[in-house]
Amino acid sequence: MRPTDIMRGCPPPPEAQVTKANWRTYPAIRWGFTHARELLPTAAIRRAAQPSSLFSAQRELTGLPFTAPDGQATTIAETLQATDADALIVMHRGVIVTEWYGEGMSVTTPHMLCSVSKSICGTLGGVLAARGLIDPADQVTTHLPELADTAYRDCTVRHLLDMQVGIRFEEDYDDPNGDVTRYRYSSGWDVAPPGVPSGDQRGFLTTLRPSGKPHGEVFHYVSPNTDVCGWVYERACGAPYAKLLSDYLWQPMGAAEDASITLDSMGAGRFAGGISATARDLARFGEMIRCRGLVQGRQVVPGAWIDDIHDAGNREAWTNGDLAFVFPEGRYRSNWYTVDTRRRDLAAVGIHGQWIYVDVASDTVIVKLATQAKALDVTQDHRWLAAFREIIAHLS
Amino acid sequence: MRPTDIMRGCPPPPEAQVTKANWRTYPAIRWGFTHARELLPTAAIRRAAQPSSLFSAQRELTGLPFTAPDGQATTIAETLQATDADALIVMHRGVIVTEWYGEGMSVTTPHMLCSVSKSICGTLGGVLAARGLIDPADQVTTHLPELADTAYRDCTVRHLLDMQVGIRFEEDYDDPNGDVTRYRYSSGWDVAPPGVPSGDQRGFLTTLRPSGKPHGEVFHYVSPNTDVCGWVYERACGAPYAKLLSDYLWQPMGAAEDASITLDSMGAGRFAGGISATARDLARFGEMIRCRGLVQGRQVVPGAWIDDIHDAGNREAWTNGDLAFVFPEGRYRSNWYTVDTRRRDLAAVGIHGQWIYVDVASDTVIVKLATQAKALDVTQDHRWLAAFREIIAHLS
Repeated sequence: MRPTDIMRGCPPPPEAQVTKANWRTYPAIRWGFTHARELLPTAAIRRAAQPSSLFSAQRELTGLPFTAPDGQATTIAETLQATDADALIVMHRGVIVTEWYGEGMSVTTPHMLCSVSKSICGTLGGVLAARGLIDPADQVTTHLPELADTAYRDCTVRHLLDMQVGIRFEEDYDDPNGDVTRYRYSSGWDVAPPGVPSGDQRGFLTTLRPSGKPHGEVFHYVSPNTDVCGWVYERACGAPYAKLLSDYLWQPMGAAEDASITLDSMGAGRFAGGISATARDLARFGEMIRCRGLVQGRQVVPGAWIDDIHDAGNREAWTNGDLAFVFPEGRYRSNWYTVDTRRRDLAAVGIHGQWIYVDVASDTVIVKLATQAKALDVTQDHRWLAAFREIIAHLS
Repeated sequence: MRPTDIMRGCPPPPEAQVTKANWRTYPAIRWGFTHARELLPTAAIRRAAQPSSLFSAQRELTGLPFTAPDGQATTIAETLQATDADALIVMHRGVIVTEWYGEGMSVTTPHMLCSVSKSICGTLGGVLAARGLIDPADQVTTHLPELADTAYRDCTVRHLLDMQVGIRFEEDYDDPNGDVTRYRYSSGWDVAPPGVPSGDQRGFLTTLRPSGKPHGEVFHYVSPNTDVCGWVYERACGAPYAKLLSDYLWQPMGAAEDASITLDSMGAGRFAGGISATARDLARFGEMIRCRGLVQGRQVVPGAWIDDIHDAGNREAWTNGDLAFVFPEGRYRSNWYTVDTRRRDLAAVGIHGQWIYVDVASDTVIVKLATQAKALDVTQDHRWLAAFREIIAHLS
């Protein structure tokens, strides 16, 4: 069964049927990641009344040869095919120089972002902070007293944004009995076995226990931290996350399409990974980050918040943390990765191959969406990083 | 708890929480009917790239006095309040002369249409027939052989469109153990008790048994007939209903917003009642019906199909059928009601107060959306009919 035969027919043959039981597994994942709203409840993140302009001057980049980290000679086109890519947009100096879509994708197709959603949350935080709606120094429990007996006691919004919470939670995507599995039941992403709690993500968040280690010292990647962060935003602002994101980012930045976020059965959003958006709107978003929060002359995100993302990540917390093997020269701030502190690039990265790569020095923004079979696949990530850098070298 | 306090807070207080357990009951229903996609999986029905123009020259009509069928003096404004109305648009000679929204509604808010969805299905049928994709004379089982052992044996698409199927199914919205309850479990609208089949609407449709009466003689209102009709469209055209509706109606008629349709857990749409759309796009749709299928000079629906809706309803089947008490002078064709054969008006009507009223003689189209507590409330329907006719008399 090829991914492009999935969900053909009404009903499709059983082997082509996508349900909540298989939607994030190969070969269903390509259809699943482009039809999340057909599988789960979702809230709309409203687009702008008038999309911001995107200019295009396409150059042939997909034939570009480069050397993968394993020493093999390859090309961008080969890499797109070999890594189950669904979309690639390269913007250079504010102009789209490459725009490529895989089968089943188009300029209007929303695609699951996985943890790229977290970087959107971290960016939204800057807008809310500038408006005085939240303060990164706020105690989480000041906003959410119901978390007083959880790992989030004595934790600040900053600790959430920087993944420095002393929490007992292992982000293992492949352990069928692990924390992530229970978490996915709570957010309604997977069908829970009878008797297992499901569909109430906020309830799940109140069960999370401290690790005993202090907050603010070590980078420890925990998706529920971002769900707590979005929950703080909602409580502080008195509005649903989807509306905050629309009012403060999606509409001001000129998004052409509604994005969406998955909801559990109580209406709680999966802020850490549940957003779907088009590649073009992500290019707008990445370009706004590159331009220090500016969109066509309007300051949508405070420049100082972006500067802080570039400058204030804690290198020591990162090197002692659990993803240093992915970006050995990296750090993390407000849900954005610096891939290489010497280069000062930024990345939003999601499992199954989602990337926004922002390289200020070369005026480049790259969006790459995919449906890789493996959730975490560092080999593919490193191959794409090499590809991004080859593209940048070629453009510069 | 007032409807406007529903779902305030994150989480809202328990009495303000909407879930699949209460979303169509008062007071949750207003929130539920404007947030269906936040409760259920949905497919997008894509809008047009460029909305068709809507011109507005508002006149004060809400103060208009009229006499309700019970003899009481009232006004449009009083009736809006007394019948839980959410939106009212009156178009006269192609121009919006009144546009009113209740609290929580706006020009971009999608609202559940209930069985107004059926009239959309019946209209889409005309486009597909003109393109040779279906023929109303087709046997249902030619397209869907899996229904050979059901009530739909020997039944044509025309029988579906005109609700003249000899089927054992009682459309009682309030019987907790009735056919409609099992049907709603199948479409995922309600949470089924453990062990009760749910989430597979197509599977449910294959369980429906014949009544023993012949097809084509008596009007018998059965929602699943429309789900079978939409399923025939999908099979005949090889595309999902949401795409057919977008390609052949929503985009050509210049819809400004995406509509949506609820899906079961296998991706089957609830064509009979699961569409949500904005009042303005419904006004566009009604205006297209009024104008014999024309939208800004383009023939979107064949004029002959609209003529047939006006002319070919079987009056005898209607008077012997189960809704003659609602419209004693009515008839039914292609999922549209003629309210009064002498007047030759048309109506799309859905439970809980949804209406598109098309009066060709006076060049008037009226869209009224509501969240009435009772599913079927003929007193309210007759009060609104009186209101519509007063508006028309006033405009003429």
